Amino acid sequence: MKIVDLATTPAFLVEEERVRANCERMRAKAAASRVRFRPHVKTHKTLEVGLMQGGGEPGPITVSTLAEAELFAAHEFRDITYAVPIAPEKLYRAAALASTIDALNIIVDSTDALEAIETFWSSRAVVFDLFLKIDCGYHRAGVDPDDPKSLELALRIAGSPAIRFRGLLTHAGHSYNAASREEIVRIAREESAAVTRFRDLLAARGVNGMIRSVGSTPTLSVVERIDSADEIRPGNYVFYDAFQAAIGACSLADCAVSVLTTIVGSYPDRNQLVVDAGALALSKDSGPTHIDPSFGYGVVCDLDLVPLSLKITALSQEHGKIDVTAGSARDHPVGKRLRIIPNHSCLTAAMFDRYHVLRYGAIADEWRPARGW
Amino acid sequence: MKIVDLATTPAFLVEEERVRANCERMRAKAAASRVRFRPHVKTHKTLEVGLMQGGGEPGPITVSTLAEAELFAAHEFRDITYAVPIAPEKLYRAAALASTIDALNIIVDSTDALEAIETFWSSRAVVFDLFLKIDCGYHRAGVDPDDPKSLELALRIAGSPAIRFRGLLTHAGHSYNAASREEIVRIAREESAAVTRFRDLLAARGVNGMIRSVGSTPTLSVVERIDSADEIRPGNYVFYDAFQAAIGACSLADCAVSVLTTIVGSYPDRNQLVVDAGALALSKDSGPTHIDPSFGYGVVCDLDLVPLSLKITALSQEHGKIDVTAGSARDHPVGKRLRIIPNHSCLTAAMFDRYHVLRYGAIADEWRPARGW
Repeated sequence: MKIVDLATTPAFLVEEERVRANCERMRAKAAASRVRFRPHVKTHKTLEVGLMQGGGEPGPITVSTLAEAELFAAHEFRDITYAVPIAPEKLYRAAALASTIDALNIIVDSTDALEAIETFWSSRAVVFDLFLKIDCGYHRAGVDPDDPKSLELALRIAGSPAIRFRGLLTHAGHSYNAASREEIVRIAREESAAVTRFRDLLAARGVNGMIRSVGSTPTLSVVERIDSADEIRPGNYVFYDAFQAAIGACSLADCAVSVLTTIVGSYPDRNQLVVDAGALALSKDSGPTHIDPSFGYGVVCDLDLVPLSLKITALSQEHGKIDVTAGSARDHPVGKRLRIIPNHSCLTAAMFDRYHVLRYGAIADEWRPARGW
Repeated sequence: MKIVDLATTPAFLVEEERVRANCERMRAKAAASRVRFRPHVKTHKTLEVGLMQGGGEPGPITVSTLAEAELFAAHEFRDITYAVPIAPEKLYRAAALASTIDALNIIVDSTDALEAIETFWSSRAVVFDLFLKIDCGYHRAGVDPDDPKSLELALRIAGSPAIRFRGLLTHAGHSYNAASREEIVRIAREESAAVTRFRDLLAARGVNGMIRSVGSTPTLSVVERIDSADEIRPGNYVFYDAFQAAIGACSLADCAVSVLTTIVGSYPDRNQLVVDAGALALSKDSGPTHIDPSFGYGVVCDLDLVPLSLKITALSQEHGKIDVTAGSARDHPVGKRLRIIPNHSCLTAAMFDRYHVLRYGAIADEWRPARGW
């Protein structure tokens, strides 16, 4: 089916060849760097892309929800890291899942969470595989690697019968605040340095074999080679998006997803348009406003993904409001279709129950992502 | 089941008694004002609340997607207005739906759209019920009521054999930019005045019987009585939210929905928390930033919906980052649960496939909203 024949907009389009190229490039980089590749599936949440990430195999993966973990575990993915600090109530579900696969690695960053796991273990005798979350400067979650209390917690984990202590995990989420590749490269160095420094502290106390797990799409996209890490966990790279292009992590031509939309209002007097992709299709992520405060809600393109002089200035639930920044609204009549490269593909993908997959320009497949928690 | 026994967070909680009270209040206002009540279902997208809006009956409704229209039409709702300018490709689906109920009212605001409908009619002989969309100052969609071209379009619609011309529809979406009840009252007057003025212009040209359909939750919440309109279409009022409370359209005690979340990180050193409700649970609506630029992503409350001194400063996909603005992070340990009144209930509700319904403090039911387009 051709794009123009798709009856319902908004629709989520995936350029399969671009996804495949993005997957291969990152996998090759991991292989050349001799690090374990444990890609994140949170951006796409589909078995199809999960297999592409593994080069056709159900390899080690990272997930952001237990719902994702359960979907992939049911389809031969046997080594899964749940990379959000676990809520104590979720230990029951995590334990049930862990018993069906080789490893479900969970993460903690506090004595409270550790004690919840130990309490659970004391009644159920389930031993979890565990990573200690390290804060490498993002200051969202994780322990400060330079705080003596963090070493204390790590040593306590190392000695806990409730746990198989696998390693140290960090995420340089602050790389998203960068405005250039140079800045991202600097953050990438800090990311690896934080876990390496802490690993060495632990080794000095006799705790060896710690896996250093790092990963954010910006940092892993810009470095030529991954040094000072044992495992990487990029996720967004499979699709990329307008944000990643703006900060220099990819080019617009690497962006593999777009929202197909139809113009439902064209107003030459104020040189504006309204499209049928609103906040429920695009998400309200405001994009790289640290680089361009009026970036707009995505990059508006024609059907061949060539950017147009159109800026999405506002989103309500089912309306996207567009300023025509060059030319006339008369060039964009009611009924014409546009494709919008989203600001944040992870959030936009999650708005859709199905993806329309483009192969050589035609819609050739339909993928269904995991949903909910 | 008690809230604390709910195994999975984030979860979407609905206080049924508050929804019922919100529904009754607005319905009573419509009845007292002797206007037709055609509430919008886009906020909740559930049959249960749709019936509450109609006082137990499947009354006239407004929808934002054909998917909503199809769900409600399949359950005895026989008079539906699809209040987004229709994309030409959607006419086939709309016609199929229209043939199963009493009326599917569609809206247009351009000659292009009108011509698409006439072309469709010429081959299929389907006559649509139609409202002309009027711009009352929001400048999203709609024709300018003071532009002579708008009257020309209206007269052409009135004479078209492809259409049953039902009336004039407007939406004062700019009431959301208000910062006080007084300002909202002024906008409400402009909203009614715009359609009344245009109706009178049409009457002077011999086009009579035009229904004046108005409606936004802010305007309809603050006015005592609806004057100068024949039909109202509020939607958000069923749930309300932190935004509506901030602009004075409701109180926080009227807000009927919240996201239940669990603290998964507590960091006394920087007095911050991380919860398991991120952008995919709350949506990234930044709230009433025109009133408070650092409003935060929702109002964080305890389990009894009493607001706490906690501000959500950032959202990533599955993490909400919270600043403790008074007191210590030690008062909020890992595992503790919080309830977040969302900034924009329409967008937050749409993130969930099921709602957990609270009746007298206990989870007593589960509702499933329509999804997609």
